[in-house]
Amino acid sequence: MIHFNDAYDKVLEHTLDLGTEMVALNQGLGRILAETIYADRDFPPFDRAAKDGIAIHSDALKNGLDSFRIEGLASAGMPQQKLKDVNNCIEIMTGAVVPRNADTVIMYEHLNIENGVATLLKQVKKGQEIHCKGSDLTSGAVLLPENTRIGAAEFGVLASVGKSKIRVKKLPKVCVISTGNELVEVDQSPLPHQIRKSNVLSLYAALQKEKIEATSIHLKDEKADIKKELIHILKTYDVLLLSGGVSKGKFDFIPEVLEDLEVEKIFHRVAQKPGKPFWFGVQSALKTVVFSFPGNPVSTFANYHIYFLPWLCRSLDVGIPQEEVLLDASVAVKPPLTRFMQVKIENRKGNLWAIPVHENGSGDLTSLVRSNGFVCLNPRGNAYEIGEVVPFIRTNP
Amino acid sequence: MIHFNDAYDKVLEHTLDLGTEMVALNQGLGRILAETIYADRDFPPFDRAAKDGIAIHSDALKNGLDSFRIEGLASAGMPQQKLKDVNNCIEIMTGAVVPRNADTVIMYEHLNIENGVATLLKQVKKGQEIHCKGSDLTSGAVLLPENTRIGAAEFGVLASVGKSKIRVKKLPKVCVISTGNELVEVDQSPLPHQIRKSNVLSLYAALQKEKIEATSIHLKDEKADIKKELIHILKTYDVLLLSGGVSKGKFDFIPEVLEDLEVEKIFHRVAQKPGKPFWFGVQSALKTVVFSFPGNPVSTFANYHIYFLPWLCRSLDVGIPQEEVLLDASVAVKPPLTRFMQVKIENRKGNLWAIPVHENGSGDLTSLVRSNGFVCLNPRGNAYEIGEVVPFIRTNP
Repeated sequence: MIHFNDAYDKVLEHTLDLGTEMVALNQGLGRILAETIYADRDFPPFDRAAKDGIAIHSDALKNGLDSFRIEGLASAGMPQQKLKDVNNCIEIMTGAVVPRNADTVIMYEHLNIENGVATLLKQVKKGQEIHCKGSDLTSGAVLLPENTRIGAAEFGVLASVGKSKIRVKKLPKVCVISTGNELVEVDQSPLPHQIRKSNVLSLYAALQKEKIEATSIHLKDEKADIKKELIHILKTYDVLLLSGGVSKGKFDFIPEVLEDLEVEKIFHRVAQKPGKPFWFGVQSALKTVVFSFPGNPVSTFANYHIYFLPWLCRSLDVGIPQEEVLLDASVAVKPPLTRFMQVKIENRKGNLWAIPVHENGSGDLTSLVRSNGFVCLNPRGNAYEIGEVVPFIRTNP
Repeated sequence: MIHFNDAYDKVLEHTLDLGTEMVALNQGLGRILAETIYADRDFPPFDRAAKDGIAIHSDALKNGLDSFRIEGLASAGMPQQKLKDVNNCIEIMTGAVVPRNADTVIMYEHLNIENGVATLLKQVKKGQEIHCKGSDLTSGAVLLPENTRIGAAEFGVLASVGKSKIRVKKLPKVCVISTGNELVEVDQSPLPHQIRKSNVLSLYAALQKEKIEATSIHLKDEKADIKKELIHILKTYDVLLLSGGVSKGKFDFIPEVLEDLEVEKIFHRVAQKPGKPFWFGVQSALKTVVFSFPGNPVSTFANYHIYFLPWLCRSLDVGIPQEEVLLDASVAVKPPLTRFMQVKIENRKGNLWAIPVHENGSGDLTSLVRSNGFVCLNPRGNAYEIGEVVPFIRTNP
């Protein structure tokens, strides 16, 4: 049995380089950029009117003028114009190019317009209401570094520089494998001693959030069958997520079969609760990583978030989310097991408080819908106190 | 011009009842349940072994026995068995049904097994290591109330009760409309006075997070064309999200055209920065709601999160996310405009601190990728102080 911190470190030592691929921008949401995105031109690309009103040359103000004959109109989408007479003005709309020899925009609210002449109602500052060429960013500047996760704002930036196709990190091919003869499909009616699959469906759904479309496979508790299937699966996928079959039971063949198939055991059993019988290994020749989680719903769900998600982040070269919260209860955690306790998070005046969720053991599937995640409590002599700061692993936003 | 709080309230007064629909469970992630989900049987459905080991009847302990002949094996997926002799034991695996006349499970770690006889190494407590029938939930109990958002954990619960199809709230049919003659498509090379579309693409991406597949349409700044197109769009969609065309410019036809088409103006212009020229209206006969946002990227993005997302939550009957954060800077916000300031959030020992993000006006698209959202600062005489608690609208997790 190894310590949680060591298990965590060992998982992160066995990341995969998954390579990159081109995808259409429309398919890019939630993916990780594998290229640096540069400004292809200045932002904004021209001196841009920031308000609707008129554009003037400030020299006219120096000459003491406070009314200006309107000699034309500039709207967004029109090529740049030029004041014929620098003592005149051009009516200008937000987003339009400021005329070549104008340098100041005055909004309608500060003007009186009559008979084609605009008269100032307020003091004017040279250069006002112009969103200057290159003032946000100059051409060639980095807009999005490599390894950026593409959210809605990044999506807009990619569009603005014409990236209709983008290079992103490939996602691992994941096979989610359930084991256990007691399991039946969701649309079947279980006999009294059977239950429907749920663990692998939770994993399947959690993977969807990471944009991974996993394949689901069920293995019956028959050693020869398991072996035959796993030979093929190990060759086909980058990652296997198994649920069940790793405890000390007579039908817990998984570790043995995996080792037969030259999946090197990195560790088996971690000093943690829930999730202790976790088995982790690597098939180096095939570059396949195997997370074999215990079969209880809370154990599988916890270990997926505790180990697999950080592994995925590290493999994709993005930061592992780190959160801290304040414990809302006193909790004793005696050695040797690290405790992952389900909590509900409450934001109270900007402080994140973690309220323990009642859980009837690691078989209690229903506790997972009442919690936002797990606090990580390493074992120690004295109890954790109310208000103590502890690490938090979010499972539910 | 109306106050921000009034604008917000008015938007929430005009929600839509979108109805419900059946979808396959696989399509349900991120959707909102429109039915209550009950336990279809007890959870767990039988007295379930929580460990690998042996099952005994505790009367045998009372009789002073501490070793038990193994008379059979019960593994997960096997029908319930029965001890032939209550002084014997049955070897039992995690997840298996506890034999009818057994009431206690002892794990292998606390046993010595030799020649088909298991001998206790440790004191035993009657009823231990059994996950009792109905101890998590009894048949008929509510597992998931109506209006629950389906995440990975909920997905597992739905599977466990056999809901391969679920009734969910319908999502609105949304049309995202860009306006402005300066805009060209993402895959086009803009002329010097043109820019590529980005606002509507950010909206399109943000809507995808809500599982809404929006339709995008571009309207040229031609009044007759806009009107003709909008007649059709108003009939076809539940919600219109427009970007641009609502300021005071000569080509800002949108409010006028919408009112011509019997879209009742609820308000136009809100005392807020950015996003002031926001126009909001309702076509009652067609049951279409129109959010017409100003064309600047920051304004559009802010108003989508400030108004549309709460409107969507309320229409779907789910809670509007409420977050508070601690200001990391002193900020003066003079009347009359409510300020939505972009911030980056840092979790420092469980406290959420909001650090202002430099933003070069509401045309600065690139500021959005550096921030996590907006703090809402209502105007007032004295400045906001460092450490003050303020509402936060998250745009980026």
